[in-house]
Amino acid sequence: MTEPEPPRGAVYCALVHHPVRDRAGEVITSAITNIDVHDIARSARTYGLAGYFVVSPIGAQRLVVDRILEHWKTGAGARRTPERSQALGQVHPVLSVEEAEVEIERVHGLRPTLLATEARPELAARVVSCSAERTRLATATAPTLILFGTAHGIHPSLLDRVGRVLEPIWGPTDYNHLSVRAAAAITFDRLFAPQR
Amino acid sequence: MTEPEPPRGAVYCALVHHPVRDRAGEVITSAITNIDVHDIARSARTYGLAGYFVVSPIGAQRLVVDRILEHWKTGAGARRTPERSQALGQVHPVLSVEEAEVEIERVHGLRPTLLATEARPELAARVVSCSAERTRLATATAPTLILFGTAHGIHPSLLDRVGRVLEPIWGPTDYNHLSVRAAAAITFDRLFAPQR
Repeated sequence: MTEPEPPRGAVYCALVHHPVRDRAGEVITSAITNIDVHDIARSARTYGLAGYFVVSPIGAQRLVVDRILEHWKTGAGARRTPERSQALGQVHPVLSVEEAEVEIERVHGLRPTLLATEARPELAARVVSCSAERTRLATATAPTLILFGTAHGIHPSLLDRVGRVLEPIWGPTDYNHLSVRAAAAITFDRLFAPQR
Repeated sequence: MTEPEPPRGAVYCALVHHPVRDRAGEVITSAITNIDVHDIARSARTYGLAGYFVVSPIGAQRLVVDRILEHWKTGAGARRTPERSQALGQVHPVLSVEEAEVEIERVHGLRPTLLATEARPELAARVVSCSAERTRLATATAPTLILFGTAHGIHPSLLDRVGRVLEPIWGPTDYNHLSVRAAAAITFDRLFAPQR
């Protein structure tokens, strides 16, 4: 018997708590919040993502994620709300985006394409529309890792090596201050919802 | 000078904490959460909704909303994050969906069309697709109130008088357990995002 072909074209996401920017643009590490772990896990599972990395270099912060996962995957939460443990089963705390990339390479044999969701004028040359990215993803054979920034967005030291940047999400107004939870949900819907 | 024509076709949303169902289908009142107030306010503002009603018959719960609004509209939060106060300026705690309907009628001279977002087989006859509803809303002259349920969804005593029910949100999987914050964001994006 031959080994099954490793899955290709899988899409992962990562919520980046470092390196991100504060209001003045300086690099900081933001705090992991319980609701970001839950909400984005549920959205990622609904839209068929292969995994969700929660990125923080601070060990005590990653332990917070481990405790959440323990409660919902094997503790009281798993018995009371089994559909929640399905979503949280895909969550992986990691200390850097590099660690997520290495993990994806270990599973799929290829480094992922990095796709960011930052609205910055200096990134204009790398911006792709949601519909173009949707088409690319539908036939991609390499894995993709979608990066969501917290605080005031991903720091340039990471953005510099991101190959593709999704167009920003706008409604019909000039106001655009969605939560990262809402932005992730809308991004997945635009990229992966069955065509209607 | 003539009075300005009252705005027509305005769209509001309401997050319903009563009457909603528990796991067994019994009517309950769920608790208001800080994050639901913030996230849905930011999404509603981004997508041009005219207002966001937070519905609870419990006075102490509505006071929680008042305190959040005070902090962000006039307190320290307003100075630090002015874009947040713009979003929260549209939030109105009310004791019932009826109170929201009366308030909309007071402003627009017409009761709103009620649009729910519940996935229930017994509602099939009233289900409309997102694209059909998007088209209707683009030319509607009457206001619309979009209802989002908390806990295990809106209780039949309220659903019975809802005229239109949006098709449920599905990704490409058989898993569908989005948070109400994610579901609201996706619903607004499907109904109101500029056509790409």
